[in-house]
Amino acid sequence: MHYHLVIHILGFLLIFMAAAMLLPIPFSVYYGESDIVFFVIASGITLIAGFLSYKLTRFDQEVRSREGFAIVTLGWVFFSLFGCLPFFLSGHIPSFTDAYFETMSGFTTTGATILTDIEKLPHGMLFWRSFTHWLGGMGIIVLSLAILPFLGVGGMQLFKAEVPGPVPDKLKPRVTETAKILWGVYLIFSALETVLLMAGGMTLFDALCHTFGTMATGGFSTKTASIGYYESAFIQYTVILFMMIAGTNFSLHYRVMKGDWKAYFKNNEFRLYMLLIAGATLFIGYDVLLNHSPAFENAFRTTLFQAVSILTTTGYGTADYEKWAFSSQFLLFLFMFIGGSAGSTGGGMKIIRLYILIQFVRSEIKRLLHPSAVIPVRVGSHVIPKEIVTNVIGFLALMAGLFIIGVILMTILGLDLVSAFGAIAATLGNIGPGLGSVGPADNYAHIPVLGKWILTFFMLAGRLEIYTVLILLAPSFWKK
Amino acid sequence: MHYHLVIHILGFLLIFMAAAMLLPIPFSVYYGESDIVFFVIASGITLIAGFLSYKLTRFDQEVRSREGFAIVTLGWVFFSLFGCLPFFLSGHIPSFTDAYFETMSGFTTTGATILTDIEKLPHGMLFWRSFTHWLGGMGIIVLSLAILPFLGVGGMQLFKAEVPGPVPDKLKPRVTETAKILWGVYLIFSALETVLLMAGGMTLFDALCHTFGTMATGGFSTKTASIGYYESAFIQYTVILFMMIAGTNFSLHYRVMKGDWKAYFKNNEFRLYMLLIAGATLFIGYDVLLNHSPAFENAFRTTLFQAVSILTTTGYGTADYEKWAFSSQFLLFLFMFIGGSAGSTGGGMKIIRLYILIQFVRSEIKRLLHPSAVIPVRVGSHVIPKEIVTNVIGFLALMAGLFIIGVILMTILGLDLVSAFGAIAATLGNIGPGLGSVGPADNYAHIPVLGKWILTFFMLAGRLEIYTVLILLAPSFWKK
Repeated sequence: MHYHLVIHILGFLLIFMAAAMLLPIPFSVYYGESDIVFFVIASGITLIAGFLSYKLTRFDQEVRSREGFAIVTLGWVFFSLFGCLPFFLSGHIPSFTDAYFETMSGFTTTGATILTDIEKLPHGMLFWRSFTHWLGGMGIIVLSLAILPFLGVGGMQLFKAEVPGPVPDKLKPRVTETAKILWGVYLIFSALETVLLMAGGMTLFDALCHTFGTMATGGFSTKTASIGYYESAFIQYTVILFMMIAGTNFSLHYRVMKGDWKAYFKNNEFRLYMLLIAGATLFIGYDVLLNHSPAFENAFRTTLFQAVSILTTTGYGTADYEKWAFSSQFLLFLFMFIGGSAGSTGGGMKIIRLYILIQFVRSEIKRLLHPSAVIPVRVGSHVIPKEIVTNVIGFLALMAGLFIIGVILMTILGLDLVSAFGAIAATLGNIGPGLGSVGPADNYAHIPVLGKWILTFFMLAGRLEIYTVLILLAPSFWKK
Repeated sequence: MHYHLVIHILGFLLIFMAAAMLLPIPFSVYYGESDIVFFVIASGITLIAGFLSYKLTRFDQEVRSREGFAIVTLGWVFFSLFGCLPFFLSGHIPSFTDAYFETMSGFTTTGATILTDIEKLPHGMLFWRSFTHWLGGMGIIVLSLAILPFLGVGGMQLFKAEVPGPVPDKLKPRVTETAKILWGVYLIFSALETVLLMAGGMTLFDALCHTFGTMATGGFSTKTASIGYYESAFIQYTVILFMMIAGTNFSLHYRVMKGDWKAYFKNNEFRLYMLLIAGATLFIGYDVLLNHSPAFENAFRTTLFQAVSILTTTGYGTADYEKWAFSSQFLLFLFMFIGGSAGSTGGGMKIIRLYILIQFVRSEIKRLLHPSAVIPVRVGSHVIPKEIVTNVIGFLALMAGLFIIGVILMTILGLDLVSAFGAIAATLGNIGPGLGSVGPADNYAHIPVLGKWILTFFMLAGRLEIYTVLILLAPSFWKK
């Protein structure tokens, strides 16, 4: 492990974050609030730390995958460390644990909050809180992929560790180009959503914050009541649409933008994505219409919103799904594990892995019926190599193992079974709200300090697809 | 599919069951109860059905694995159908659904009951109820393996479908011999336990019934309070010991009986089995000692009893574990999925599969650290072929899928999340008592009729390792 390379690049990235920390100031000024000084101090500290790390090390070697893994994971750890300074220094989140939890929740696009009264925070703080989503979402790291090459770093190693999903859809051979394209798509959609939300009646401030939360599939809102605060059907449908966009593979968007209109529906993962949303809306909608919301359009919108919000791992809410039927709650609980598409900003196991798992089970059953036949696992007409199938299954087994360990730890800390299941599923899947005492009408404030750190770890592990984080825990990883 | 072969063999087996149905009569006579007539009628009906099936078909072809699968699954279905007649005809279980549920629960060695007051039943009925465990446990089918060959059936196909676990430990080349040996071991232990339980103060009747429940890892008791009714530490330790024996691979017992004393501890599955019991006893015991049972020996015994009872999928109880810490409950919930060893009477996924899964995840993590290395999955020093690993994982994926479908169905029927999780885990794993409204202090009487049929299916699927049952649902299985 070449530590100096890791420190060098992290330093470089921190300098950019120091600049980003000044972005909330215009809003502080506009709303006449007194939190400007804390952004200046936090930015200054981050700048100094970044500058020193950058200057005291030299970039004299190639970045191998080892350093790539370290940069990605430590990137999230340190961004959250410096990123929580405005909350902590200003005293708006007086506990360091809480401030770190909230910031990691932001950068990992989880959206789990320890805040009980969100409206109490000044606008600058809320802007920064939502902005961590946007930075984390598509990725500080994907952003950096467009910049690092100027330093002479190939960046392929970072890409390998970062871009989620087993079948990255290579758009262009050069990673930098790819990152720039994805970044461009992300920017276009973000601008579009902001405009639409303002057209629906939001202020620029609220529109931006909710765009950050949507496009990153994060879930932080500027309102304690989340999107439920806005009764406008137009705003709610807009958020639904952009959550769906954010949960789609961004290279598909690019293809469509390039004129290949059928790209979405030629894609197997996208089709399963739509099927899951449609199925859940029908299934849950039946109960919602019958027992909770007799108006058809309203029942449809509320159900669709919740299904999309959980499946894409956003976590926005317009209703308290814990009041719905147990079967609806369980389906949403399952969605927490599935998550968005590969190459989207969504978390969870990713829909393509579910697809491969289904195909695998199918092929195993067929093999039992026809013992002599060779039945490969396919995605569409492509035969998936055995190593990929094994890798997908290994990932799912690891995810299940981590989930079990998490639930054991949370129950030891005193959470009941439903809350423990909900808290771990919602952080490991980067959703935000879970079930029980951490349900959509509640928050994470009451979790014991140790529990908050455990959940922070689960957010990180979930966001970085587990392996990337676990590999750093292996002693042999750090050896020469 | 050669239907006539299936009918022929099922008929033959039913004739044996008709004889077994007369065994409760001595107890009815001894206790002066009036249920004798119902056993005679039930036995007569079964005999006629069996005799007609046997006589109207001919054994003129070889039994292929297709027919093997059909005989195994339909065997359980029809044994439960005829086996429930005494309960239903006598009106002791007036609902047919309930009577079938109870009998399937017996033959699958689950031990889930719809009875609210067990002591109300006459002794003959209780004897038959427990005897279904014993027949089902080691296997009506394993028993039949020693008989079928006289009909000229090789039986290997049945064995393939019946003996649980991916690594059957072949004792002797000929299947008949193996079946006889396992049967002998089963009989010796059963006799031993009966004697010990009587020495502890039980009547012959209670000793026999509890032996049936123990050796089959079933869980039916003659007391509503289960083993908790007996305060004798000697009885409780005896049941613990024999539950552990019943959850062990019977070929290991045979080896030890043959003089290879170290066979147990040379076996990787057995070592993991002991480790799981010891770990759970320590983990749960800490809470039980601190908060529920201040006397050390009592806390140890209660905890060990519960850990062994759930892990072996017996389901006997001496305490209401739902009063214990959430972490203890969750650990026991996990144990419901693991189950006993391969080649034991225990249900669940089997410990060897957990072992292979752990080794698989380990090898995947190693492969990530050393991408070029070839890291096989091992059990001890044996390299496990890739197809076996794939098969194990396919099984676990199928089990997880079935579990999810089951929970969805039970929540649709109105069960809360914890009860639905508990009911499906406890039936799919063949444990008996679950969590929530089907916990150890409750029973299955309140489940809606449709729910009882669903759970009946889950008991059957769990007992026959899923594939065996699912394969019958494939249309192509029945073709030609």
